[in-house]
Amino acid sequence: MDMEKYSEGACPIGRALTQIGDAWSMMILRDAGHGRTRFDQFRTSLGIAPNILTRRLTALTRAGLLEKRRYSERPPRDDYLITAKGRDVLPILAAIGAWGAKHCEGGALSRAVDAETGDAIEAVVVDRATGRPLSKIAMRVVVPEAA
Amino acid sequence: MDMEKYSEGACPIGRALTQIGDAWSMMILRDAGHGRTRFDQFRTSLGIAPNILTRRLTALTRAGLLEKRRYSERPPRDDYLITAKGRDVLPILAAIGAWGAKHCEGGALSRAVDAETGDAIEAVVVDRATGRPLSKIAMRVVVPEAA
Repeated sequence: MDMEKYSEGACPIGRALTQIGDAWSMMILRDAGHGRTRFDQFRTSLGIAPNILTRRLTALTRAGLLEKRRYSERPPRDDYLITAKGRDVLPILAAIGAWGAKHCEGGALSRAVDAETGDAIEAVVVDRATGRPLSKIAMRVVVPEAA
Repeated sequence: MDMEKYSEGACPIGRALTQIGDAWSMMILRDAGHGRTRFDQFRTSLGIAPNILTRRLTALTRAGLLEKRRYSERPPRDDYLITAKGRDVLPILAAIGAWGAKHCEGGALSRAVDAETGDAIEAVVVDRATGRPLSKIAMRVVVPEAA
């Protein structure tokens, strides 16, 4: 993607995708949301090539979704902690998971539950003010006027 | 991403991302949701290279998010119409846009409104049963037992 065009563009979806619009980045954030913080944890969990993992961790850190914290000086080793900005992606990942559970069937699936009650969680995207599911709302986009 | 591993895996997020975990694919779906159907419309709107656009349209069609319909025999030309499966991605894109509006600031942004009332729409991901925002719920993942 033409990052320069989209990261400064008027479309907030395009802007967001320059930072999170990549499957590996989203899977790393998924794992970070589950408490994983270390290079080897991500590598083992995801089966991702080390050079790609390095690149994605660097990009996510630079964009402020993860924060690097040194936990060992010798050898030099860092944790990658999810930030508030990164944490705000997790509900989106849950919505992506709900879409996957509906549309990519076949075989047993893991599922999200409320950690306290154990109740199943089903993610749905709604309008904050009215609570209506966005799937039921015809939307249009208002483009900002030229300055 | 190792598509074979993830498309058959237990994680519905991983499964979904093998089909929609790519910035260009999501931008094409955004445009398709706005009523764009033709190769040249996508190309012009997105500024995407023709070979990449061809590849993404083919993948989205094969995965059932778009449907190809021939509208001209000479020369051979196809429309790409968004399917119900593709339409189910649009609320997720709205949630991604809400994240982008919050976290990728700077300059005027386009925004989604209710096409009927003109009211601003703010996408938020909630639990369907309780209406609680997922950002307020501690979740854990239940992995399916081995068969």
